[in-house]
Amino acid sequence: MSEYKKKFVLDEERIPKAWYNIVADLPTPPSPPLNPATLQPAGPDDLAPIFPPSIIAQEVSAERYIEIPEEIHQIYRMWRPSPLIRATGLEKALDTPAKIFFKYEGVSPAGSHKSNTAVAQAYYNKLDGTTRLATETGAGQWGSALSMACQMFGLECMVYMVKVSYHQKPYRRSMMQLWGANVIPSPSDQTNAGRAVLAEDPESLGSLGIAISEAVEDAVTHPGSKYSLGSVTNHVLLHQTIIGEEALLQCQDADAYPDVIVGCVGGGSSFAGIAFPFLRENLAGKTNTRLLAVEPTACPTLTKGKFVYDFGDEAQSTPLFKMYSLGHDFMPAGIHAGGLRYHAMAPLISHAYDLGLMEAVAVPQTKVFAAAQLFAQTEGIVPAPESAHAILTTIDEALAAKEAGESRNILFNLTGHGFLDLGAYDAYLSGKLEDYDHPEEAIAASIARLPKVD
Amino acid sequence: MSEYKKKFVLDEERIPKAWYNIVADLPTPPSPPLNPATLQPAGPDDLAPIFPPSIIAQEVSAERYIEIPEEIHQIYRMWRPSPLIRATGLEKALDTPAKIFFKYEGVSPAGSHKSNTAVAQAYYNKLDGTTRLATETGAGQWGSALSMACQMFGLECMVYMVKVSYHQKPYRRSMMQLWGANVIPSPSDQTNAGRAVLAEDPESLGSLGIAISEAVEDAVTHPGSKYSLGSVTNHVLLHQTIIGEEALLQCQDADAYPDVIVGCVGGGSSFAGIAFPFLRENLAGKTNTRLLAVEPTACPTLTKGKFVYDFGDEAQSTPLFKMYSLGHDFMPAGIHAGGLRYHAMAPLISHAYDLGLMEAVAVPQTKVFAAAQLFAQTEGIVPAPESAHAILTTIDEALAAKEAGESRNILFNLTGHGFLDLGAYDAYLSGKLEDYDHPEEAIAASIARLPKVD
Repeated sequence: MSEYKKKFVLDEERIPKAWYNIVADLPTPPSPPLNPATLQPAGPDDLAPIFPPSIIAQEVSAERYIEIPEEIHQIYRMWRPSPLIRATGLEKALDTPAKIFFKYEGVSPAGSHKSNTAVAQAYYNKLDGTTRLATETGAGQWGSALSMACQMFGLECMVYMVKVSYHQKPYRRSMMQLWGANVIPSPSDQTNAGRAVLAEDPESLGSLGIAISEAVEDAVTHPGSKYSLGSVTNHVLLHQTIIGEEALLQCQDADAYPDVIVGCVGGGSSFAGIAFPFLRENLAGKTNTRLLAVEPTACPTLTKGKFVYDFGDEAQSTPLFKMYSLGHDFMPAGIHAGGLRYHAMAPLISHAYDLGLMEAVAVPQTKVFAAAQLFAQTEGIVPAPESAHAILTTIDEALAAKEAGESRNILFNLTGHGFLDLGAYDAYLSGKLEDYDHPEEAIAASIARLPKVD
Repeated sequence: MSEYKKKFVLDEERIPKAWYNIVADLPTPPSPPLNPATLQPAGPDDLAPIFPPSIIAQEVSAERYIEIPEEIHQIYRMWRPSPLIRATGLEKALDTPAKIFFKYEGVSPAGSHKSNTAVAQAYYNKLDGTTRLATETGAGQWGSALSMACQMFGLECMVYMVKVSYHQKPYRRSMMQLWGANVIPSPSDQTNAGRAVLAEDPESLGSLGIAISEAVEDAVTHPGSKYSLGSVTNHVLLHQTIIGEEALLQCQDADAYPDVIVGCVGGGSSFAGIAFPFLRENLAGKTNTRLLAVEPTACPTLTKGKFVYDFGDEAQSTPLFKMYSLGHDFMPAGIHAGGLRYHAMAPLISHAYDLGLMEAVAVPQTKVFAAAQLFAQTEGIVPAPESAHAILTTIDEALAAKEAGESRNILFNLTGHGFLDLGAYDAYLSGKLEDYDHPEEAIAASIARLPKVD
């Protein structure tokens, strides 16, 4: 075997000291969120019932860099810098001239990138006097990350977990409870939003949109409580840019600047996290890195949704956001990548996609699991089903490089490990997984129900 | 908060190039294994049916250092060097003047130290022409590590998994299958050894001793097959010394040479792995580090066993080893730390303990889980139940330092993560865990049944 360096790990002193805000550099500003009653731009006051002031300030900021407080930086150092790893085993199996690198966020406490924003949100809420946070979770990666962060800052944590995932991933529930959170399956009978869904469909599998409605309602009806969101909003994408800022330095250390960056998208925060610092370099005219988002065919927001104003949740309790959407009452199939079952896409990702600054592709879950198994067998890491979407497309890109006879540098975001998703692997290995290609008519119908704003 | 460095990670170039063999430095040589029929020292020929020649050479070697082949070193770099982490959160919670460090082996593919020897054993077997390996596993850490290693070297893998763990930890089974292994619960009807146990007790929970008997029988009755063991034997302890050799360098980098090293013991390999390089320094008169082994009260091999010749397995198919033992037909309670349910202790550990070179303590599982939860809440890592035994004793040591008003350096071995043990945490959190203090009479009875050799 030839000599190579397998891992690129920064010294703690080189962990970036600021998050990067893409808003400062976009060629046109993103459309503002709207108050659904007035259809006027939503201001900080519209967000005050659910978010604390310092989070709202970040949500509406146009500053290019926002300093990471030392208290957060110290907690980041529990798992950061996350390693950049060269996938030499996968390269060999594919016999590709491409160099494949992945940024491994599975080293965090809850096992995914979600800890990057969970710690920041818990910190700012604590600072602003919040005593309790309510949130939703899909596959449980976000809920467990926030549970741990709340534990560290002495906040109570209430988690509404999408019912299909609650039953598919019982270990995630135990993990949240270990960190002191209260976890219930959504839709639940704890909120008006949940009761309304159950009245219509007592067997509802739940969705992120419904769970968000429950968590928002919970937050505004409990004193001292705020709501915390694991993706989609600007401040969450901001916090995740620590991934890309580290990766930039590590790619320089590896002497392998990426030709293409691949990442999965559900709400879009991990993709923004790794991609936006590289998009900054593109926008400055220094580089021309392709940015490629991968979504499930069962929830094809970018590839089949529309760029419209829509609600962030099923019960229409959020402001209206301009984003790619399948409609806020879109109900995706119960695929195992629960974290990608969201009807819409982060406004900043949507805007960048609309401007042609990035690409998107949709892939089916059986191929995703086959790619995941190849990765586990060659790189030794069991990936989360969400992250495995990026692995499949990375393999396709590496094979395209082989076909073209070019040694391209491919960087993908391995957002989390799959140790708590082995039930899904069991279903795959025993031939029980199905693919879901959501019918065009169903998508058209849910989009037709959207509020007409434009 | 004060400034501190949280993680100590070596450059890949500083990963040690050799394993350390304590046999070269022990003040008296360990007693040889015996052929049970002749009671004469067992030679390489006695081991040839189950191990390949290059493993046997390591098993009987007295060389101080054995070079790590480059092929193994390259695979080690998938996860090595494992980080040395300062447990600042735990220190703060305990308000102790002690500095607590842990070596985190949970970063490996299968999530524990077991990968260190699995890769080495698969490599040497491949080199010597083996095409298939049979093994046993308790909690599944060893079985999954060997499955991954066999996958990487193109060997078939057959795993007999102790039945109580097979049902407690279904995700471990899926993980082994993902890496291509064949996994069956033990006792099984696949072997004479398994059928004999089932005939006597169809409801047998199994034990490591029984599963070893099945795997050994399987190996010797299938062409091209050899047996692979995850602990106890000299060559396994040898491979694990990469942990302690790295830790030595990292403790120097941290300017915190350990006053005491704490580790859990089942078969003893992870403890030997971290402790023996430091024991070398003690034996050379350079240091005086305390070495403290922690075992479960349900299987108190060092603290209540006898130092005698005994078989390594239930069916008496191995040579006789001089070791601390509870008797080869000792049946420990079904505690959740399945990896610690072994009736005996590695001969090299037993010899060192007998010589007074190390200490041992036994702890009950409910206290272990309470310590594990505190660690998860303060350090963000969910520990394996086995590893959590070391956490409990580390806490006791840190509180003793506080009582004494001394700033001691404590190093413990966090041998694995507990992501696949969350069912056990669920049992703990819902108050369903019990402690088992094995009755002295039962221990005395099983020891009385031992072969009389001395």
